[in-house]
Amino acid sequence: MSAMRKKKSAKTQKGDQTKALILETALEIFRERGYEQTTMRAIAEKANLSLGNAYYYFHSKEHLIQAFYHRTHEQHLAAVAPVLEKERTLKSRLLTVMRLKIETIEPYHEFAGALFKTAASPGSPLNPFSDESDPVRRESTALFAHLLDGSKIQIPKDLRAELPYLLWVYHIGIILFWIHDKSPKHRRTYRLVDHTVDLLDKLISLASNPFMRPLRKQALRLVDELRDAAQDFNDDAERGEK
Amino acid sequence: MSAMRKKKSAKTQKGDQTKALILETALEIFRERGYEQTTMRAIAEKANLSLGNAYYYFHSKEHLIQAFYHRTHEQHLAAVAPVLEKERTLKSRLLTVMRLKIETIEPYHEFAGALFKTAASPGSPLNPFSDESDPVRRESTALFAHLLDGSKIQIPKDLRAELPYLLWVYHIGIILFWIHDKSPKHRRTYRLVDHTVDLLDKLISLASNPFMRPLRKQALRLVDELRDAAQDFNDDAERGEK
Repeated sequence: MSAMRKKKSAKTQKGDQTKALILETALEIFRERGYEQTTMRAIAEKANLSLGNAYYYFHSKEHLIQAFYHRTHEQHLAAVAPVLEKERTLKSRLLTVMRLKIETIEPYHEFAGALFKTAASPGSPLNPFSDESDPVRRESTALFAHLLDGSKIQIPKDLRAELPYLLWVYHIGIILFWIHDKSPKHRRTYRLVDHTVDLLDKLISLASNPFMRPLRKQALRLVDELRDAAQDFNDDAERGEK
Repeated sequence: MSAMRKKKSAKTQKGDQTKALILETALEIFRERGYEQTTMRAIAEKANLSLGNAYYYFHSKEHLIQAFYHRTHEQHLAAVAPVLEKERTLKSRLLTVMRLKIETIEPYHEFAGALFKTAASPGSPLNPFSDESDPVRRESTALFAHLLDGSKIQIPKDLRAELPYLLWVYHIGIILFWIHDKSPKHRRTYRLVDHTVDLLDKLISLASNPFMRPLRKQALRLVDELRDAAQDFNDDAERGEK
């Protein structure tokens, strides 16, 4: 049993390496030619693999992008972990998570620009709001929940329940800004992060005030409504594309 | 002199009729074939005009769409005018303007869906935020300023200066929602208008409170920053397309 496990583990390791090789190769070609223009055949050829072997690891180009999202998220998690151990204010925790997110994806700026045209359209499986992006969206939303739980601020239950998702949407907005940002070292994005985190910190405090309860309830109902609508629009667009 | 004027006026009238004919014909073909697939030649042929004559009135397909935006705005103005004469609360005035906007554009829902793919991309002259859309954006923003001026609410100067533009952006958001809305009679969009107008009315009151001054100032600085960035991103995209 133990020998079998070892054997399997060695096999898995080789599999992981092949997977990583395919992903790296794919990102390189996507960056050069754009997402739409790249075929799985071209990726397999450049990685010196048979087409069947490439398909064994990734069933489609979409799966490659989801793997890219996933890997970026893992790298981000590793980067924020030590800082979240220490920082205790909401503001410093959110600032860390946001700044390190941009730093993590920085090497892929050009690629993100090429991906944007495909991923931005509603109904695309690469859209961050799509069903296909659900696993990585959940993981990323969980990070924002963790960020909130470890901070000293008292947030009412109704707001606490929606806030991780709202912060995730905010972080998608910042990434969209960064994709279009041509300022040196993307300083403009970092400045926007600083401003918006400061403002969000104050708005969350304000919204947590008992006097704000009716307005907060109403705003949260609106969030629900918009989230349902986004889901339906996405489903409509997917059906339309099929 | 008087005879000349009369003659010119008759000529202008005929010109206006031809312009209207070209616009109606264009909207019909755009709706059938989509914006990108339609040529000025096809529009001229269907309207029984020479290509040169069509170009005399509209220098390009973009000019047709800007004329469409403009005409829709005029129709909206005519629809809201009698109600804005009577209503005096911010909430009732904003509700009227928003509901009548959707009613005005209702006949063009299918066409708006076809236009969306082109108009949504940054750098497109048909994008509501583009330089080319500046005249109609100004007219539309002026309506929101008029809406505010005639309402009883006291709004501090700093917020009053930005609010017409912010309400214009909000109204673009509602139109985007309506484009994707497939509910019967677009009830979902009307429900969203009701909810958001109610919420906006309360948020504007809250933001006008003297205690909110520092937070309001900070939020308005962010609006400025985002508006500048949107302008620059748009310019970058336009340069990129040339």
